[in-house]
Amino acid sequence: MSLMSLEQLHKKAIESIKGEKGVITINIGGIPKTSKSNSIIGNCVQEWIPQWLEDNGLKLEPNTHTQSFPDFTADIGGKKYDMEVKCWNYNNSPAFDISNFDGFYREIYINPAKLYAKYLIFAYKPTTHGFIIENIYLKNLWEITGKSVKYPIGLQVKQGRPFAIRPVPFHKFPEKAFEDVKGFICAIAETRKEFPLDGAIDAELWLKTVSRIILE
Amino acid sequence: MSLMSLEQLHKKAIESIKGEKGVITINIGGIPKTSKSNSIIGNCVQEWIPQWLEDNGLKLEPNTHTQSFPDFTADIGGKKYDMEVKCWNYNNSPAFDISNFDGFYREIYINPAKLYAKYLIFAYKPTTHGFIIENIYLKNLWEITGKSVKYPIGLQVKQGRPFAIRPVPFHKFPEKAFEDVKGFICAIAETRKEFPLDGAIDAELWLKTVSRIILE
Repeated sequence: MSLMSLEQLHKKAIESIKGEKGVITINIGGIPKTSKSNSIIGNCVQEWIPQWLEDNGLKLEPNTHTQSFPDFTADIGGKKYDMEVKCWNYNNSPAFDISNFDGFYREIYINPAKLYAKYLIFAYKPTTHGFIIENIYLKNLWEITGKSVKYPIGLQVKQGRPFAIRPVPFHKFPEKAFEDVKGFICAIAETRKEFPLDGAIDAELWLKTVSRIILE
Repeated sequence: MSLMSLEQLHKKAIESIKGEKGVITINIGGIPKTSKSNSIIGNCVQEWIPQWLEDNGLKLEPNTHTQSFPDFTADIGGKKYDMEVKCWNYNNSPAFDISNFDGFYREIYINPAKLYAKYLIFAYKPTTHGFIIENIYLKNLWEITGKSVKYPIGLQVKQGRPFAIRPVPFHKFPEKAFEDVKGFICAIAETRKEFPLDGAIDAELWLKTVSRIILE
């Protein structure tokens, strides 16, 4: 049966991958060894997922602008979705980069539909000989982001400049996330006001334009 | 036949691994995928080598002080060696960290015998589906280090402080390396003079002490 929606794909991932063991093997000249280090698991899971998605009928086209948001355009059952694939070590709080703030701000103004990009997120736990897939989430942007202690949205700030938008611990405290897309875009506009940028669209105009389009 | 020296082990590595293909496989829930990214090859080779060395009769004891130099004490045929295992992408110049400068300076003063630590170095080249082991080197410290354009020894400098000692491209230009251990320790002392450090042993005293012991 071919999958017709991302929700079906998510359900299938839960059924067939959740709780499963992962192993990383390095084979040189026919001599295989199992990796016991945690440092490469994230990169490996991040590489495995898109291949598995394609096995399951999802056509993925990588975004040609690597700096741009989101990573992929996914084609499933003839429908196209903006999509990101993420993973993180479940023993820690999720700290993956959602997007560079300035790039995201620019991109959403041009194409507000990208606010509805879907996040397929794999949580893994390292074990003695590999890892286990703890859970799999299919989320909207505003379901994984929220206000932080210091800023209107979880934000990595480097040398006084906004850098990456970061998730809240949505897996344990979903109530820390924004309530809806409206709360999310207001936080983005607030953040722009706190961190003005020469040449960027005015935050009020940005919010008005993006709101009008998404509420249509 | 059990190996009796590091030179024999190096010869065996050349015979059995040089030119061989490497593949990294990520298996989740019984579904294997081959890694095509270059970013994890270095980490994987670095993990595979010590396991292969142990298969071949080398007992490796990791240095308990992780900041300390070198990584391992190797026991082969009843003899003990200070040993480091390194790898790098042969398409680039080797840029692995040899040691933190300040830690190395301190450690060598206490234990000058560590100047004779052996470096087993694997060079790999990424391919479409994995990598190939291009060459394997067994080297002394002074055979992989040399004067750089700016400093008496190849050195990574961060915010005006010496950070990591770095190799010269010994694989292509062995003449860029120091001639002997004496040239190497003089360069270390010169570097200390250029970067004085409160509480560190005086460079002249360091050189005199280390020279006397290694020339005995």
